[in-house]
Amino acid sequence: MVKSKKNAVEIKVAYIGGGSRSWAQHIMADLALAGTLTGEIVLYDIDYAAARKNVTRGRQVFGHKQSKAVFKVRASKSLSDALKGADFVFLSIQPGPLQMFANDLDIPAEFGILQSVGDSTGPGGISRALRCAPLYEDFAHKIMRYCPAAWVINYTNPMTLCTSILYDAEPEIKAFGCCHEVFGTQGMLATLVKDHWGMQERPPRHEIKTDVSGVNHFTFVTKATWQGHDLYQLLKLRAAEKGFWADRTADSLERVANAKWFGSHKLVAFDFWRRFGVLGGAGDRHLAEFVPWYLTSEANAHRWGFVLTPSSRRLAHYTMKRPTIGDKLIGSGEEGVLQMEALLGLRELDTNVNLPNRGQVAGLPSGAVVETNAQFRRNSLNPVVAAPLPAGVLILVQRVAAVQQMTLEAGRKRSLKLAFEAVLNDPLCNIDTDKAWKMWRKLMKANAAMLPGYNWR
Amino acid sequence: MVKSKKNAVEIKVAYIGGGSRSWAQHIMADLALAGTLTGEIVLYDIDYAAARKNVTRGRQVFGHKQSKAVFKVRASKSLSDALKGADFVFLSIQPGPLQMFANDLDIPAEFGILQSVGDSTGPGGISRALRCAPLYEDFAHKIMRYCPAAWVINYTNPMTLCTSILYDAEPEIKAFGCCHEVFGTQGMLATLVKDHWGMQERPPRHEIKTDVSGVNHFTFVTKATWQGHDLYQLLKLRAAEKGFWADRTADSLERVANAKWFGSHKLVAFDFWRRFGVLGGAGDRHLAEFVPWYLTSEANAHRWGFVLTPSSRRLAHYTMKRPTIGDKLIGSGEEGVLQMEALLGLRELDTNVNLPNRGQVAGLPSGAVVETNAQFRRNSLNPVVAAPLPAGVLILVQRVAAVQQMTLEAGRKRSLKLAFEAVLNDPLCNIDTDKAWKMWRKLMKANAAMLPGYNWR
Amino acid sequence: MVKSKKNAVEIKVAYIGGGSRSWAQHIMADLALAGTLTGEIVLYDIDYAAARKNVTRGRQVFGHKQSKAVFKVRASKSLSDALKGADFVFLSIQPGPLQMFANDLDIPAEFGILQSVGDSTGPGGISRALRCAPLYEDFAHKIMRYCPAAWVINYTNPMTLCTSILYDAEPEIKAFGCCHEVFGTQGMLATLVKDHWGMQERPPRHEIKTDVSGVNHFTFVTKATWQGHDLYQLLKLRAAEKGFWADRTADSLERVANAKWFGSHKLVAFDFWRRFGVLGGAGDRHLAEFVPWYLTSEANAHRWGFVLTPSSRRLAHYTMKRPTIGDKLIGSGEEGVLQMEALLGLRELDTNVNLPNRGQVAGLPSGAVVETNAQFRRNSLNPVVAAPLPAGVLILVQRVAAVQQMTLEAGRKRSLKLAFEAVLNDPLCNIDTDKAWKMWRKLMKANAAMLPGYNWR
Amino acid sequence: MVKSKKNAVEIKVAYIGGGSRSWAQHIMADLALAGTLTGEIVLYDIDYAAARKNVTRGRQVFGHKQSKAVFKVRASKSLSDALKGADFVFLSIQPGPLQMFANDLDIPAEFGILQSVGDSTGPGGISRALRCAPLYEDFAHKIMRYCPAAWVINYTNPMTLCTSILYDAEPEIKAFGCCHEVFGTQGMLATLVKDHWGMQERPPRHEIKTDVSGVNHFTFVTKATWQGHDLYQLLKLRAAEKGFWADRTADSLERVANAKWFGSHKLVAFDFWRRFGVLGGAGDRHLAEFVPWYLTSEANAHRWGFVLTPSSRRLAHYTMKRPTIGDKLIGSGEEGVLQMEALLGLRELDTNVNLPNRGQVAGLPSGAVVETNAQFRRNSLNPVVAAPLPAGVLILVQRVAAVQQMTLEAGRKRSLKLAFEAVLNDPLCNIDTDKAWKMWRKLMKANAAMLPGYNWR
Repeated sequence: MVKSKKNAVEIKVAYIGGGSRSWAQHIMADLALAGTLTGEIVLYDIDYAAARKNVTRGRQVFGHKQSKAVFKVRASKSLSDALKGADFVFLSIQPGPLQMFANDLDIPAEFGILQSVGDSTGPGGISRALRCAPLYEDFAHKIMRYCPAAWVINYTNPMTLCTSILYDAEPEIKAFGCCHEVFGTQGMLATLVKDHWGMQERPPRHEIKTDVSGVNHFTFVTKATWQGHDLYQLLKLRAAEKGFWADRTADSLERVANAKWFGSHKLVAFDFWRRFGVLGGAGDRHLAEFVPWYLTSEANAHRWGFVLTPSSRRLAHYTMKRPTIGDKLIGSGEEGVLQMEALLGLRELDTNVNLPNRGQVAGLPSGAVVETNAQFRRNSLNPVVAAPLPAGVLILVQRVAAVQQMTLEAGRKRSLKLAFEAVLNDPLCNIDTDKAWKMWRKLMKANAAMLPGYNWR
Repeated sequence: MVKSKKNAVEIKVAYIGGGSRSWAQHIMADLALAGTLTGEIVLYDIDYAAARKNVTRGRQVFGHKQSKAVFKVRASKSLSDALKGADFVFLSIQPGPLQMFANDLDIPAEFGILQSVGDSTGPGGISRALRCAPLYEDFAHKIMRYCPAAWVINYTNPMTLCTSILYDAEPEIKAFGCCHEVFGTQGMLATLVKDHWGMQERPPRHEIKTDVSGVNHFTFVTKATWQGHDLYQLLKLRAAEKGFWADRTADSLERVANAKWFGSHKLVAFDFWRRFGVLGGAGDRHLAEFVPWYLTSEANAHRWGFVLTPSSRRLAHYTMKRPTIGDKLIGSGEEGVLQMEALLGLRELDTNVNLPNRGQVAGLPSGAVVETNAQFRRNSLNPVVAAPLPAGVLILVQRVAAVQQMTLEAGRKRSLKLAFEAVLNDPLCNIDTDKAWKMWRKLMKANAAMLPGYNWR
Repeated sequence: MVKSKKNAVEIKVAYIGGGSRSWAQHIMADLALAGTLTGEIVLYDIDYAAARKNVTRGRQVFGHKQSKAVFKVRASKSLSDALKGADFVFLSIQPGPLQMFANDLDIPAEFGILQSVGDSTGPGGISRALRCAPLYEDFAHKIMRYCPAAWVINYTNPMTLCTSILYDAEPEIKAFGCCHEVFGTQGMLATLVKDHWGMQERPPRHEIKTDVSGVNHFTFVTKATWQGHDLYQLLKLRAAEKGFWADRTADSLERVANAKWFGSHKLVAFDFWRRFGVLGGAGDRHLAEFVPWYLTSEANAHRWGFVLTPSSRRLAHYTMKRPTIGDKLIGSGEEGVLQMEALLGLRELDTNVNLPNRGQVAGLPSGAVVETNAQFRRNSLNPVVAAPLPAGVLILVQRVAAVQQMTLEAGRKRSLKLAFEAVLNDPLCNIDTDKAWKMWRKLMKANAAMLPGYNWR
Repeated sequence: MVKSKKNAVEIKVAYIGGGSRSWAQHIMADLALAGTLTGEIVLYDIDYAAARKNVTRGRQVFGHKQSKAVFKVRASKSLSDALKGADFVFLSIQPGPLQMFANDLDIPAEFGILQSVGDSTGPGGISRALRCAPLYEDFAHKIMRYCPAAWVINYTNPMTLCTSILYDAEPEIKAFGCCHEVFGTQGMLATLVKDHWGMQERPPRHEIKTDVSGVNHFTFVTKATWQGHDLYQLLKLRAAEKGFWADRTADSLERVANAKWFGSHKLVAFDFWRRFGVLGGAGDRHLAEFVPWYLTSEANAHRWGFVLTPSSRRLAHYTMKRPTIGDKLIGSGEEGVLQMEALLGLRELDTNVNLPNRGQVAGLPSGAVVETNAQFRRNSLNPVVAAPLPAGVLILVQRVAAVQQMTLEAGRKRSLKLAFEAVLNDPLCNIDTDKAWKMWRKLMKANAAMLPGYNWR
């Protein structure tokens, strides 16, 4: 990298996927607002037209009067071309047509397995991971061929598995997985702070210091402070409020009626705190999928204040909030650009991230991808050792990590039979083994077009 | 020990418990038939009258014309007196009144948790383990005080927890746990041999060589041979027979009608083989309790060919087959006396047994009590390293072992709250955490009389 | 803590020991120059007069025109009084009279074991650790009684053992060990930078980013950068210079002649780099004591450019540079005050520190005290996961850590026999076991006055 | 295998190597005397004439009047032909010309590293292992191709490394390593028994029950009994005899004068017992090479009662006692035939053997080849979990195992540089790193003809 005329650092960014969602546009808006970097962004998507659309939008972003950065934006039909010499590679794909995502939800549901999201764990998450395996192995090999020094930032779910596949295929890759679920918990804690001290506005999220541990979407906030104040005291006060633990079915039904699929009361996160002493770190819809206690029925989910996203919602066009390109360019609130800046040596950043376990989470296997805090520094990314998880939660996470290891192996070996062993071990699979087997046969058959080379041995 | 006049080795045996069941009588019959040992048997039971009854029976046994052994049999009101100087201590108690065993089954069932046995795992097994903790800690301390060189043979369930408590309280104790469940699997394999080679009678059980691994009642037979023939080939043939996997509801209902609570078709043991490649090593009623797939409803249990023992059966007086003391003295088929002989140097014996893990089961924590083959030799008992469990089964066993470690700690700390964390992690607990909490409060309250010193912190 | 009038944070500092060296004075000078903290400093030393002398000096420091801080300084005859309510406790003692330090060097030397420092490892380090055990156990218990929330900063050698004893005695203690040896290596690297880029002055030490791993005084710098430049490239250039590996006996003899005991050419640190690929992180005099290759004879030490500090030097009065209190108050260059500020939330600090291993060093046992980078944040101290050590070096460190664990146990059990097993395993002990035994008997006898309660069983 | 007419089991044996020593002849004599097996023995040696000589001798053996067995014996010029369809493969080679064995002793000695045997550990053992790597990789691959079901019995040193290379190259191989060093210790214990109880003859070796743990030639007898008597009591009595620990220089010099290279007083084995509480399990000449305490000088070796075998002895023709084929056929006292019989199901055998660690030695890495007791049964070989080694000895063995892992890797990668890292870590390498480097360069150059494909990177 060399400095550009305007003191910005010159880089090449390859953005893989992103056609169907607005993540690519968010990154571009953040780059434009930061103004610290310059260079080239190459967009690659199997749907070339979608990539082209992002080019148009990107040019608008960097041409905006508020933009402080200069970036050349182009689409490429060749993955190799997009990767060649890149300093940063973003991976943000949809593994297969949306119908397959719908299958991942609907087919298990037919057999009595409910999933609130279905892209991280459960039969749906395992199915999705198998579809990702051939794609991500290919990404890994091409990255090590065309841009081995690049930092690779994964946004695709299942986060843990996608990141694991990269390292499994190419152990020397410099990849990490990013997820904003913990931000939501930090936001909730910021609200507790505001309420407790009667502030006008809640403090900025980054003032909430959290110690994070677990695997993606099944993370725990083992410590939380604001200016040295222990926020666990505030959890206690909040949970003691009258009605806090009440049945939230009414709210949930209202959510369903208004198609507000993503909200929650954080009751599941708090329930972990009540039962095991640590606060859940992801949203309730995610947390609930990793244990057998909340998704026993739709009514039970509603009682806890969260709802099952229907597959029809998945099939409809995603309408994620896109960066305003009217009068004002608006940032995403995500950390991608901060991470790039830190890896380039322009700042220091400590945040949570998904990386192979080198010791940061005691009790989980070495090499398993885990989520903890890490130090982003100039060309280095070092995990910080997380506070130990209490035994009751550690068992749960160990089991999830073990299922993920089996899924990884099933993907590598293209074995649907081995994947079924993972399914049986999944916390959501509490049905008869015969029924489970039928479910799995049906799901794999429905998704077969994206499972090249897989077999039943 | 010194040799008796008649070349029998002279020993003192302390038998703790056994009043309500016929185990003590079985051991005495086996000693009488073996004729290799002599000396004194002291019976201790909190129900002194029951111990006295066993004394009477014991004297009949050793006075029988077929008896080859001379033993003095007496009851003692003092545990210390019974233990003093003993060479062997048998532990075989009922932890609390039978009503509590009924509670262990009925209260979880009220909340939707079905248990086919309820004495090893699940909320029932955990409850029973908590009742055992104070009793077994006391046994351990008294044994190390009054007969530190004794071999301690545990028969009480939960086998893993009772043995664990002994070692947790007194790491130098020479204890092991014995269970005959694997014998049943060996018997089934012997029948396969007989059928396959068209033999008149099935070969004796000890000719079936099995490699055993797991935790008690959740064991697996990873290898099985008869005279060098791989019996896994026979499993394959048997499972391919028409109708083998058929719904066994009709048989199950007949079992219920005739109060035949303990039978099964070994379908669950075979299902493990089908799904994961290793045969279950315990009876189906036990195996099913360690996973969430078979006890989802009573109908599902019936479909697999096993039935739930009703608590009324537990409350009725146990009517175990007692050793005939008519014309013929009949042995038990158990291995207790063979083990004593081997530990005294009179023979060599290799059999499965429950011991702290020192390396015999890879993947389970050091010190956790596990079941594998071991070498009984003169004053030594060395576990044999078991064949590795396949990954899909290892996850399941790891989880069970972790729940057992939490239960052990909850017992040691007398913490009902920590025990609840174990309950939530138990494979049978697939209900809402609120409901689970109510279930647990009720169960602990009902069994409170046997939980001295326990609290809810 | 409450803010003082002058916006400084008010704290109580207990300084234990420090009478015979100037560390206490350094801390006071640094506090005076920082101006961010205020409150009370209580000095405790078994030599009360020495503590009184430090009080006098402390008052001069805070009364100096350049001092920005207000601190009340007093000595106390009671350890409990000094500790009561302290926010920070410094431990910096001399374990026993200087004659014992001389014994630690001289008696092993009689038997052919040379030590260049003799306070960290080898028979001398083990002897010193045994003397520390009773003292440090007492510190730990009193701290948890009188100031359980305090941060405890250890400066005493053997660093690893002293810190280990604190945690062994009181697992909840908030202690860490600080050592400036890595600063020297950073300084050397800063000089390489200056020379390579032809700078006027070498860049400040904190600009040299190092990844540190190992145990105290046997640390390794696995990565080093300056503004993104890989300094391993500079090592390579330096080592390729003509004469770099030459025999340095002449320089060493000059050092001896001029009583310059502490200098070195960093050749040993470089030799590790040449043979194993990682740079030694401590001074050569320390590094050489952890392997059997450099202290085979005094001549060999001289060949590598370092000298053995004679025990006479130890016996002479320490004349460490003291903070000037003439015209100008001069800081120590140490990080104690920065660490306090960071733990109080006034700044962020990432630096190397000695803490129990929670995963930061892969391959070393959990709980063993290791040295790595860590994050100092408001009331939290989290180790950063270190880059893996190469296999060839990891073996060496594992062995050292194992010897330290045995020494810890020997101290806890007051067993000189067990300590001898540690001695035999020490890398410097390459003599006949009979001779080693005589050496150890003699050394223990000579130091017996500081070994209360120890025995030979 | 099918039974022969005469009720003997019919097998094919491939014997690889053995040309220069009499091992092949010993096995044939033992087979002849046992009479339980029959079939074909194919001898393969790179020195075809030597193999032919063994054929002649073999035919004499099986034609002897005392022979109870019928075996066809032939030599083959093709390794593949020899292996094809074999049931048992013996590996017993000399890796390279005897001059290289001499180099392994002489070149380290030039630089001050003394070795008493030089074929298992130290620079000599590492050098020898490197020569074995290409050969043993080839054996492993060919065995898995031509006789994958065969049991492979290794006799070649370095035992641990040779067995490790087989498993490293072909993880599914059924190999184990056999060594008779422990027999010598059992013999010594049998003598203690005879002396203590005033018996006419010492009891047969197999009556001495030992628990063995460690790595080959650095094994420890953690427990020893005879008919239930604890033989550790006898060790104590023996070691208390006057003069037991005396200087044995006179005896050693006599040994040298009479070229009695292999004797010893077992003083080193006892010294381990005195210092660490466990008896050394191999001969003193082997034990001494794994620690830095006895080979500090030839005089020190002599003081302990053992001598350094001169390389001239190596270069002379080996004159191992050959099986008498005069009037009487004499067995070897080795266990090879017993092991074959047990693996064929004809008997049960428990003995010590070298196998990858699956849990039998706690504290050593999984997969590292270790020596413990194991159960030989019909087509199965299961290690028995060994009693834990005391901490002081475990450190020593861990270090040795780590050096062996590095050597294995160096061989696999054909890297002389990585092998040098192993050399530096070897317990015998207590010299300056420069000198060590020179020694290693010289040794590798001298042995280069047997190091194809190796390089200095």
